Amino acid sequence: MLDKPGVTESLARFVVATRWEDIPSEVAHQAKRSLMNFFAVALAGCRTSPVEMALRSLAEFSGGKQATLIGRRECIDALSAAFLNAAGANVHDFCDTHLRTVIHPTAPVAPALLALAELQRVSGRDLLLALILGNEVQARIGLAISPSHYGRGWHITSTCGVFGAAAGSGKLVALDEGQMVWALGAAATQSSGLCECLGTPAKSLSVGGAARNGLWSALLAKQGFDGPGEPLTGVQGFYHALNETADLPVVTNGLGESWEIMATSYKPYPCGFVIHPVLDCVLDFRRDHPNAEVTRVLVRGNPLLSMRTDRPDVSTGRESQVSVQHAVAAALATGKAGLDQFTDACVRDPAVLALRGKVQILRDNAFSTIAAAVDITTADGVVHKLSQAAARGSDVNPLSDVNLETKLKVAAAGWDRGYDAAPLIDAIGALDKSADVSRLASLAVPH
Amino acid sequence: MLDKPGVTESLARFVVATRWEDIPSEVAHQAKRSLMNFFAVALAGCRTSPVEMALRSLAEFSGGKQATLIGRRECIDALSAAFLNAAGANVHDFCDTHLRTVIHPTAPVAPALLALAELQRVSGRDLLLALILGNEVQARIGLAISPSHYGRGWHITSTCGVFGAAAGSGKLVALDEGQMVWALGAAATQSSGLCECLGTPAKSLSVGGAARNGLWSALLAKQGFDGPGEPLTGVQGFYHALNETADLPVVTNGLGESWEIMATSYKPYPCGFVIHPVLDCVLDFRRDHPNAEVTRVLVRGNPLLSMRTDRPDVSTGRESQVSVQHAVAAALATGKAGLDQFTDACVRDPAVLALRGKVQILRDNAFSTIAAAVDITTADGVVHKLSQAAARGSDVNPLSDVNLETKLKVAAAGWDRGYDAAPLIDAIGALDKSADVSRLASLAVPH
Repeated sequence: MLDKPGVTESLARFVVATRWEDIPSEVAHQAKRSLMNFFAVALAGCRTSPVEMALRSLAEFSGGKQATLIGRRECIDALSAAFLNAAGANVHDFCDTHLRTVIHPTAPVAPALLALAELQRVSGRDLLLALILGNEVQARIGLAISPSHYGRGWHITSTCGVFGAAAGSGKLVALDEGQMVWALGAAATQSSGLCECLGTPAKSLSVGGAARNGLWSALLAKQGFDGPGEPLTGVQGFYHALNETADLPVVTNGLGESWEIMATSYKPYPCGFVIHPVLDCVLDFRRDHPNAEVTRVLVRGNPLLSMRTDRPDVSTGRESQVSVQHAVAAALATGKAGLDQFTDACVRDPAVLALRGKVQILRDNAFSTIAAAVDITTADGVVHKLSQAAARGSDVNPLSDVNLETKLKVAAAGWDRGYDAAPLIDAIGALDKSADVSRLASLAVPH
Repeated sequence: MLDKPGVTESLARFVVATRWEDIPSEVAHQAKRSLMNFFAVALAGCRTSPVEMALRSLAEFSGGKQATLIGRRECIDALSAAFLNAAGANVHDFCDTHLRTVIHPTAPVAPALLALAELQRVSGRDLLLALILGNEVQARIGLAISPSHYGRGWHITSTCGVFGAAAGSGKLVALDEGQMVWALGAAATQSSGLCECLGTPAKSLSVGGAARNGLWSALLAKQGFDGPGEPLTGVQGFYHALNETADLPVVTNGLGESWEIMATSYKPYPCGFVIHPVLDCVLDFRRDHPNAEVTRVLVRGNPLLSMRTDRPDVSTGRESQVSVQHAVAAALATGKAGLDQFTDACVRDPAVLALRGKVQILRDNAFSTIAAAVDITTADGVVHKLSQAAARGSDVNPLSDVNLETKLKVAAAGWDRGYDAAPLIDAIGALDKSADVSRLASLAVPH
C-alpha cells in the first residue's frame, strides 16, 4: 500500500483489527453502563404508539420468529427486531448522549447486535467490543461535521447511527477490511433522518432504520455485496453530498487511543439537559421538606436555560420536556422527575398547574449549562437556598452504576410491576464472562 | 384555511384530489409507455448479481409470499418485492429518464404499486393514475433543487423516488390529505442515496429502498403513523437539511395543468445518452452495408460527447457504457447496440478491439447533444457520410410504441427464450380497461 489509506479504509482497518484485549477496562465497563441505560430506555419505550404501529405493520411482512422484542412477548425477524428495538429505545428523550455530537449512540447500535446474537453465537465480550467499536465509528464520523450537520436539520443519531450499526454488526459477522468498507458504503447510501420529525412518530423511522439498515449492510457485505472504495470522502460520497467541510483528521486521529464512549452521558430525568441541575435542587428540597407548601420558586441559570426552556404555558407531555416551569412544578408536586412527570396527564394536573405559575427564571452568565441555583420560598416565609454546580448525569458528575440500575428498575416497574429486573441487571454486569448472549434480550421480556 | 397551504400540503391535496377523469389521454398513454419500458428493464435486470444477493438475504427475514418478483419464480413479502423489483429495473443504465432532473422515474414507483396491487384490489386506471401522480410528485420535488442536488452527489432517483413511491402508494390506499402529508414526511426522513455508489451493487440499496420505504410510508400513514406538518420546507425539513435554495414555486405551480411524465425519455441503447445519435448513424450504416470492411470512423458531435465518452481504452462492460469508441466498434462488429454489446465479454472481443482503434472523435459546437455526424470509410475507399439531427429516444424523436414493445421483447428473449411477451404487452396496452391488475406482474414470470 503506497498511498495513505482513505478515511473509510482507516476506520474499517481499525474495526477489523481491534481485539477485546485492546479495550481498556474502564471502556469495557462504560459499555456495560451504556447497555444498562439502553435496556432502561427500551423498556420505557417498548409499548409506545410508534412501536405498536410499526410492529403491526412489519408483522404483516415478516417471516421468522428470529429475534426478541424488548419488553414484549412477540418475536419477529432480525431486521425488524433491530428496527423496533431501536425505535422504542429512542421514543422518549431519555437515551444516552454523546454530548459533542448530540448523538444518542446506543439506540441504533445495540439492537442490531442483539438481533445478530440470536442468529449466531456471540459472546459477551464480542457484544461489548462490537458496541464500543460501533459507537466509536459513528461518533467520529459525526464529530467531523459537528455541530453544523445537526444544526441544519439532520437527525445525527440516525444519519451517523447507521454507520455504527454497520460497523458493530460487521465486527460480529467477522467482515474483512474490504467487506467492512462495503458495509460502511452500504450504510452511507442508506443514511437518512430529519430533525423536522422530532416530536412525532416519524422520528422512529430513521432511528429504527439506522439499526435495521446498518445490520443489513453488514450482512450483505459478508455475502460479497460490494460498494465504492471511499464512500465517506469520495467525490460523490457522504461528506460531499452533505456539502460539509468535514474535519477529516477527527475521524481517524488517535483511533484506539481515546474512546468516545467515555464521553457518553446518561440522563437521570427524561427532559432537556439544561433543566437537570434545577431538578437536582428541587428534588433535594422536596426530599428534605416533603410536605412544605411552596409559594415562590426563583431559578437562576445559564442563559441557555431560559432561551431553551422558559415555557410557562405548555399543553402536552412532549412540550413539557422543554419547560423548566413545568419540570419544577411537577417535581414539587410529586417529588419525582421520571417519565410520569412528563405526560399529558401531568401537564393538566391542577396541583402542577398551580405551582407552575410560581416559578420565575433569571439569566446569569456566572452559571455553566450544568449548574443552577434555586431559591424556594415556603408558606412560613423561609427562603430555602439550593444550588447545584454540576448536574447529576453530566460528564463531571456521572450517574453511578447504582443510579443506572435504578433507572432500569424504575423503567421496568413502570411497564410491568410483576417483572423482576435483577436477572437482566446481573447479566449485563457479568457480560464479559458470558460465552453466549443469545438470551440477553429475552431477560427483558415479561413472563 | 386562512394561510396559504404549505408546499407539502399542496402536493398532498393535489394527489388526493386528482381523479382518472382529470388525466389527459396522452398522459395516460405515456404512463403505459413508461410501464412497457419498466418491464423491459426489469426483465433485463432481474437475474443480475445485486438482485440475487439481496434476494438471498431478504428471503431469510421475509414472511409472506405476497408479491411477485418480475422475471423470477420466487415470491416474497410486498415490501421486499418492491425493493427487489426496483433494484433490478435500475441495475442497467437503461431506465426511462426525466431529463431535466435525470431522475429515472418509474423504477422506484411502479414496483411499490405492483406490490400493493397484490395486497388489495387495484384497477388498471388506479395503477396508471398512481404512477402518473407519483411521477409528478418526485419530479417536481427534484426540479426545485436541480441540477445542484444531483451535482453534489445525491442519487436523485433514490432521494426523490421515495416521495414518488409514497405518493403513488398513498393514492392507491386512499390516504386523506393529512395522511398524505404524513406519508411524504415519512418518505423525507428515509430519503437517501449517493452517486458514489453508481457502478456498484450498493446503488441498488437506495433505489430499492426508495420503493420499499415509500410503500411503507403510505401503509404507515394509513394506520395513523403521523409526522411533521411541513416535512419539505420546515425549518429542519428536507430542503433545509440539504442546504439547498429550493425553487419552491416549481413544486406547486401549474399542478394538474402540465405533466412531467410527458418529459420522460426512453433509451433505445443501454449506454450514455450522448452516444445515442452516433449509434443511430452507425447502425443505419451497418444495416445498409452488412459486410463492408470499415477502415476508419470519424465522429463529430457536441463537446459533451468527447468530454464524457472519449474513452478509447475501457476494460469492463460498465465502463463501456460511457465509451463512444467501444459503442461504435461493438455496433459495427455486431450490427446491434443492446445489453450484449456492453458486457465484459464484448469489451474483450478481438473484432471489437480491432475496430475500436479506428474511431476518432471531433468536437463541434454546431451539434446539439442529441445530434452527431459520422463519416465511415470502407476498404474500397468510399467515405459514407451519415448524420442524425435528433437521436432516437430523445424528446423530439421519441421511441414509438412499437419500439418500446420491441425493447421489452428483446429484453425478455435475452432472459428466457421460451417466454412469450405478448400477453404482458397486451395487458399493458389494455390497462385502462382492466378491473384488477393483481396478475400483471406475474405475466412477467417464466412458466
